[in-house]
Amino acid sequence: MTTILKPHGTTEDDITAEVLRRFDATGEPRLRQIMQSLVRHLHAFVKDVELTEAEWMNAIQFLTETGHMCSDKRQEFILLSDTLGVSMVVDLINHRKPEGATESTVFGPFHREGAPELPAGGNMAPRDMKGIPTVVSGRVLTLDGEPIAGARLDVWQADSSGLYDSQYAETDELHLRGQFRTDEEGRFLIRTVRPVYYAIPTDGPVGRMLSATNRHPWRPAHIHFVVSAEGYEPVTTHIFDDADPYLESDTVFAVKDSLICTFVRHDIREPEAARFGLEPPFCTARFDFVLKRRG
Amino acid sequence: MTTILKPHGTTEDDITAEVLRRFDATGEPRLRQIMQSLVRHLHAFVKDVELTEAEWMNAIQFLTETGHMCSDKRQEFILLSDTLGVSMVVDLINHRKPEGATESTVFGPFHREGAPELPAGGNMAPRDMKGIPTVVSGRVLTLDGEPIAGARLDVWQADSSGLYDSQYAETDELHLRGQFRTDEEGRFLIRTVRPVYYAIPTDGPVGRMLSATNRHPWRPAHIHFVVSAEGYEPVTTHIFDDADPYLESDTVFAVKDSLICTFVRHDIREPEAARFGLEPPFCTARFDFVLKRRG
Repeated sequence: MTTILKPHGTTEDDITAEVLRRFDATGEPRLRQIMQSLVRHLHAFVKDVELTEAEWMNAIQFLTETGHMCSDKRQEFILLSDTLGVSMVVDLINHRKPEGATESTVFGPFHREGAPELPAGGNMAPRDMKGIPTVVSGRVLTLDGEPIAGARLDVWQADSSGLYDSQYAETDELHLRGQFRTDEEGRFLIRTVRPVYYAIPTDGPVGRMLSATNRHPWRPAHIHFVVSAEGYEPVTTHIFDDADPYLESDTVFAVKDSLICTFVRHDIREPEAARFGLEPPFCTARFDFVLKRRG
Repeated sequence: MTTILKPHGTTEDDITAEVLRRFDATGEPRLRQIMQSLVRHLHAFVKDVELTEAEWMNAIQFLTETGHMCSDKRQEFILLSDTLGVSMVVDLINHRKPEGATESTVFGPFHREGAPELPAGGNMAPRDMKGIPTVVSGRVLTLDGEPIAGARLDVWQADSSGLYDSQYAETDELHLRGQFRTDEEGRFLIRTVRPVYYAIPTDGPVGRMLSATNRHPWRPAHIHFVVSAEGYEPVTTHIFDDADPYLESDTVFAVKDSLICTFVRHDIREPEAARFGLEPPFCTARFDFVLKRRG
C-alpha cells in the first residue's frame, strides 16, 4: 500500500460545523443550546485571535493550575469568573429588579455555611479583634415600604487586615460571620468592625493574570449579605463604604451606586453608643433592604 | 444616614465595556488582544444563553472537577479541549500546510517524555503483549520527494485493550512508545501491535459531558507520531486504520483523509514476515511523512 495524500480540504469552519452537529443529539434542549452556543463562541475566540499552540498550552496550564488551587477554602474559578466580569454579567441577567428593590451583586468565593445565629446587636467580631467597632442597622422592607418581620440576614466580611477567616491556614474558626433576624418592625442590628479595602488572593493563577495585565487586585470595603424572607425573592448583595478609594475600580466589578452606604465615624461619647457599650471611636451605618415578593 | 436608592442604570453591556477598558493597560499587546477577545466572547456566550446562576455554579464545579482530575498522568483539560473541537481548530489555524506536506492533528493527552530510542525494526511492544503483530514502514521525505536522513519519529499508541501505559495505575512502566530514526534513504521501520479503537477516559467530567449530550467516547484506531528533522517543520500527527468503524465520528474530531492508511492483514507465511521473525497472522502498514522546510 502507498500513502494516501488527498487534497487538504478541512477548514476551521468545517470543524466548528461538525462539532455543532455532534451536539444535535443532546436530549435536554437547554443543555444542547448551552453546549452549541459555548462551542460557537469558544471557536470564534480561537479563530479571532488565531491562538498559537504555545498559547493554547498556556491556557491548558492556566486552567489546570486554577483547578489545583481550588479547595474547601478557596475557589479560584469563582475568582476568575469575578475578575473577568462574568459573575456580574450573570448577576445582571438573573436579577432584573423593579425600581426600588435592593440590587444584587456577586456572591464571591468566601461564603461559608454554619455562621452562628446571633441576637439583635450580636457581635460578629471576636472580643479584642482589631478594627473600629461598627454598628450596622436598618430594616428589611417590602416594595411598598412595609416591614418584613423574621427576615434572615446571612452576613460575612473580611477583618481589618483584609482577610476572611477561611484565609487563615492555621485555624478553622469562623469569625465575622453571623445570621440575624428582623424583629416585628423589620429591624436588624449588627455589631461588627468596620470593613476595609482588601486585595483578592494574588498567590494563584488569577493573581498572575491581574499582574500580567497591569490590573490591581483591590476590592473596596464592603459587607456581604444574603437577605431572605418567606414569600420573597432572596437577594445576595454587599453594602459598600462610600469613603473607599476603590469604589470606581473594584477588581471584580461588583459596585452598584444603590449599594453604597455611609459609615459615619463617631469620635465623641454619645448616648446611642452607650446602648452597645461602645467607646469612641466607633462607626454607625444604616441600610434598608427591600425585597420583591415571589412570583 | 438613610439608604441611597439610585436608578438601576447598570446593564450587562456596561459591565462588558468596563471589563474591556480595564484590560487597556496591559503592557504586552498580544496578551491585551487575547484577554479582550476572551472577555468579549465569554460575555457574549453568557448573554446569548442567559446563563442562570445555577448553571453558572454548575460550570464552576465542572471546571473545578476537571482541574482536580489533572495529574502527571492525566490531562482532563486537554481532553475537554479535544472533545469540544478546540484543539483541532488550533491545529488547523497553526498548520496551514502546502499541498503534499503531511497534515497535523491533535497531540492528545497521552504523550510522555522518555520513550526509548529503538533501532530500525525495534519492537515498541513488550514480549508476549496481546494484539496482532504489526510492522509500520515508510519514509520521511521533502516536498520534492527527496529522502530525509536522520529524521526522528517519536511514536506512541494504546495497547490492544485500548489503554495507554499511563492509564495503568499500578505501574509507571513505559510501553508502546519509541523513538526511531530514518536511515540514509529516509526509511523507518517500526514493530508494534495493531492499534484498536478505544474510548477516551470517561470516569471524569469530560466523560459526564459526553454522556449527558448523547455522544460516544470512541476514537478510531491510530498511532501517534511527532516527526522532526533539522531544518524542517516538525509535524504532530496520527496515522489512522482505514478499516475502523469510528473514522467518521472520532470523538475528538482528529481524522483527516490524508492520514488514513491501510493496515494489511497477512494470514499466510510470507518471505517478508520471516525478516522480522513474524508468524501469521500479522499486519503491515506503509506511510510516508512529508516535511516542509523551515522558514
